[in-house]
Amino acid sequence: MFEITPTTRLRRSPFFNATVKEGVKGFLPYNQMLMPTGYGDPEGEYWRLINDVALWDVAVERQVEVCGRDAGKLAQILSPRDLSKCVVNQGKYVALCNHHGTIINDPILLKLADDRFWFSIADSNILFWARAIAAERGLSVEIREPDVSPLAIQGPKADAVIAGIFGDWILDLKYFWFRETQIEGIPLMLARSGWSKQGGFELYLMDGSRGEQLWNIVREAGQPYNIGPGNPNMCERIESGLISWGSDTDDETNPFEIRLGNYVDLDVDDDVIGIKKLRQIKKQGVKRHQLGLVLEGDQPMPVHSTWYDIYADGSKVGSMTNGVWSYRLKRNIGYALIATEIKVGQMVEVCKDGQMLPAKLCALPFC
Amino acid sequence: MFEITPTTRLRRSPFFNATVKEGVKGFLPYNQMLMPTGYGDPEGEYWRLINDVALWDVAVERQVEVCGRDAGKLAQILSPRDLSKCVVNQGKYVALCNHHGTIINDPILLKLADDRFWFSIADSNILFWARAIAAERGLSVEIREPDVSPLAIQGPKADAVIAGIFGDWILDLKYFWFRETQIEGIPLMLARSGWSKQGGFELYLMDGSRGEQLWNIVREAGQPYNIGPGNPNMCERIESGLISWGSDTDDETNPFEIRLGNYVDLDVDDDVIGIKKLRQIKKQGVKRHQLGLVLEGDQPMPVHSTWYDIYADGSKVGSMTNGVWSYRLKRNIGYALIATEIKVGQMVEVCKDGQMLPAKLCALPFC
Repeated sequence: MFEITPTTRLRRSPFFNATVKEGVKGFLPYNQMLMPTGYGDPEGEYWRLINDVALWDVAVERQVEVCGRDAGKLAQILSPRDLSKCVVNQGKYVALCNHHGTIINDPILLKLADDRFWFSIADSNILFWARAIAAERGLSVEIREPDVSPLAIQGPKADAVIAGIFGDWILDLKYFWFRETQIEGIPLMLARSGWSKQGGFELYLMDGSRGEQLWNIVREAGQPYNIGPGNPNMCERIESGLISWGSDTDDETNPFEIRLGNYVDLDVDDDVIGIKKLRQIKKQGVKRHQLGLVLEGDQPMPVHSTWYDIYADGSKVGSMTNGVWSYRLKRNIGYALIATEIKVGQMVEVCKDGQMLPAKLCALPFC
Repeated sequence: MFEITPTTRLRRSPFFNATVKEGVKGFLPYNQMLMPTGYGDPEGEYWRLINDVALWDVAVERQVEVCGRDAGKLAQILSPRDLSKCVVNQGKYVALCNHHGTIINDPILLKLADDRFWFSIADSNILFWARAIAAERGLSVEIREPDVSPLAIQGPKADAVIAGIFGDWILDLKYFWFRETQIEGIPLMLARSGWSKQGGFELYLMDGSRGEQLWNIVREAGQPYNIGPGNPNMCERIESGLISWGSDTDDETNPFEIRLGNYVDLDVDDDVIGIKKLRQIKKQGVKRHQLGLVLEGDQPMPVHSTWYDIYADGSKVGSMTNGVWSYRLKRNIGYALIATEIKVGQMVEVCKDGQMLPAKLCALPFC
């Protein structure tokens, strides 16, 4: 592939130097930052996540902080999920939508206080979005991107590593709940969360000057557990059925199409953005849905850089939005965003670089 | 530097294959797309732009199309520049601001019809922004990103190349004006514009499947004029005093700070976003301004990947936002975003990787 040219527009993570020392090989841009994408041993990094524990620089998950008198009101206006029972120190996965019911990001919302929230965002500009809505509705809030950079510790041994550093209280933390803490004076929010289904935590570093120090603390505590560097893992996340906003979605995707209907509460107030449209979509039914795809053949295919058309009986019926070689299934698997007429079990053809590849549709997740 | 990992979230330009055949060496992410950043001969590519003519893949300058009954109204609401005299086929450089008067993008606005506009944007998400404002104000518009990808032809011989392809009528085109046309059936908007001060055109390709064909047509017509591949040129743009939004600006920069006050009309209607705040800023005066910097020494320094602090008398007074080796001036030059107390002619120190580099402030542009 190609090199990334430096620019002051593309920011570096507080963990950047640590990842360079670990031998990072590639990056992806994400929220105007560089996200590490591998350390040279894709299969080893995968199995480390499945069997042991991995350390990920996910500082690119930027926080959009909303604080002030109307912060709770704005958080609800932006989120088509009922937040009325969300308490301080609790996080919620939310599918932010625009006025047409199209999903524009799928952050974790962290309630820090009754008047202070973080949206820990995927790769789209929610800072501008939230400011536009707040200003147009005349709400009394401040919206900014604070100096906060998550470091993820993921895998079945993450509990042991994190308990070793912070104490056994972390074992009682429920999923998406968090607590403010520190280690060696480094200020943190410690949350049970992360973009894998292997369990783990995210340490929201609140002082960007101390990234390397935090990395090293976790690295050292993890040695007995075979910890090593990794990154949000394309194979594991597809096997596990996790969504990647902007990769698996297009400019018309609504939450019901991509298995996020459970995160939409249709009885929230009418002033919630997109809710009227979402009620209408729910009533009329969706035209597309997201299914799994298992391609024939037992040779790994290269990573996608574009969607592939899917055909059934000679007609285009959808797109393969992502695909990957599954180390557990020993098959190329992926996601289809496809007409609802096409069902689990059906065979289709995926058009990749002019070749028609037979594939079978299945339910998600794969593992 | 590091490799870019493929992802379906990072789109390729219609000219991608052509640039690969030309030997493109690196890319930058920009509006979720890959922008070529060089072909292996930085100095040769620079002088080609200054003396002859260069071909740039700037498909990353995406269009935010606003059409419908209220399109003109929305265009004005988003732009703190009086558009009342803007006619069809005319373009205008506009400094889009948020409600705090902070610049959020600096596109060229193209008026295609009374009810249809393109914002040809810099690197921030104006699609979401415009949709938020339109929906919150109940305007009757459709907002989308159409299949439109600019190809820039820049340099003193651009007129000859473009006239050779399209005819002498292009010589009468005024700056930022455009006309719909075609070549070999490829639909285009042809505009006199481009992100250099060397003159030239942008061909807004309106059929993404024909990028390579268009590239080759221009390449062939340009042979007698020493045409070759290039890209938005960091050296030329700094010498010429052009702004790079997001590189030279931060989350508090207003147009008056960065020499864009002439593009703000304070007497536009009150419903224009940010205008009340901009009037207030104008009245109170700015605290920072943008000046040129000439660093001591005659050895080229590496390209910036972060802002550098600027000190005067031991205190931080601003930031060096970008810098480059100037092939014409044989000095490292750059931009300072700096306290207004610091004036042209004054000496300061730029702190780069712990070293204090003496530098002199000057007026912009350099050339």
